[in-house]
Amino acid sequence: MTAADLSLADEVKARLRDVQDFPRPGIVFKDITPLLADPVLFGRVINAMAAPFRGQHITKVIGVEARGFILGAPVALALNAGFVPARKPGKLPHRTVVERYSLEYGSDGLELHQDAILKGERAIIVDDVLATGGTAEATAKLTSQLGGELVGFSFLMVLGFLDGAKRLGADRVRSVITL
Amino acid sequence: MTAADLSLADEVKARLRDVQDFPRPGIVFKDITPLLADPVLFGRVINAMAAPFRGQHITKVIGVEARGFILGAPVALALNAGFVPARKPGKLPHRTVVERYSLEYGSDGLELHQDAILKGERAIIVDDVLATGGTAEATAKLTSQLGGELVGFSFLMVLGFLDGAKRLGADRVRSVITL
Repeated sequence: MTAADLSLADEVKARLRDVQDFPRPGIVFKDITPLLADPVLFGRVINAMAAPFRGQHITKVIGVEARGFILGAPVALALNAGFVPARKPGKLPHRTVVERYSLEYGSDGLELHQDAILKGERAIIVDDVLATGGTAEATAKLTSQLGGELVGFSFLMVLGFLDGAKRLGADRVRSVITL
Repeated sequence: MTAADLSLADEVKARLRDVQDFPRPGIVFKDITPLLADPVLFGRVINAMAAPFRGQHITKVIGVEARGFILGAPVALALNAGFVPARKPGKLPHRTVVERYSLEYGSDGLELHQDAILKGERAIIVDDVLATGGTAEATAKLTSQLGGELVGFSFLMVLGFLDGAKRLGADRVRSVITL
């Protein structure tokens, strides 16, 4: 980590807003909208999220609905890669592959279009937060199911105490900040 | 319209996928994912969506959940403006303003954070499709409610036969293609 990285991490931390009891009592939600409102900082974050994967021949960047779209689309353009939306069931119009994952209570699902990743394509997965890693793992499974090579994950923030990085393979996980 | 614009419009039309009977029987859905998968075309579309608003001192670009995030975030970065997500009720964590709008059956709502647009800020609204204009109009009302100056709307495509542009004020509506 360089001095410039450290400074970016500090600036990002200063621009996250803690929202108490969202979406449920007892949860402190990290609101990224103050960061998105600052185009210079937003641009630096996109560069930092793309940087570990430059020169790695990434052809697809998968963004996880919905905040992953806000970060994933610019990261895709920064890497000169195509953008692929991973969406909740029923949202993608064409033929899909679907993967279920567990939540604290119950389960949910994610889908990719069947033609979103071609066999052998090198892909990364982008989202705002890595917590337990359930949605990221489901997206990784979908990528493999389509024959893609998952090169890594790029998050804005990793909630370090939740061990999501271990679940995904720590050496493949990159983030701008760790909380 | 220049020859370059014409060629972009033709290329965009060629990369939209018609999906029959989505989301309901009788609807032909225009799937933009083949376009997003092509980084060169995606980048040209973002430039074209930003172009009419360059030099107009735009400080906020509002993207409408969820496909509007994919286009709006890169447009915001292209204009060196902040990005603001307009979301379905209950998704934004902080204090919000909310606006209801009618659907063919029933109604839905959109929210902005109360601090998303500062008084006097010049903003544009970005989304993939202009159909009847219900969500765009609701987002415009939220912008005004916060004291923002709505400079215009930038869509990837306008479904011309639905008269959405008239509802929003045709002189403020820009799009890459009209169908």
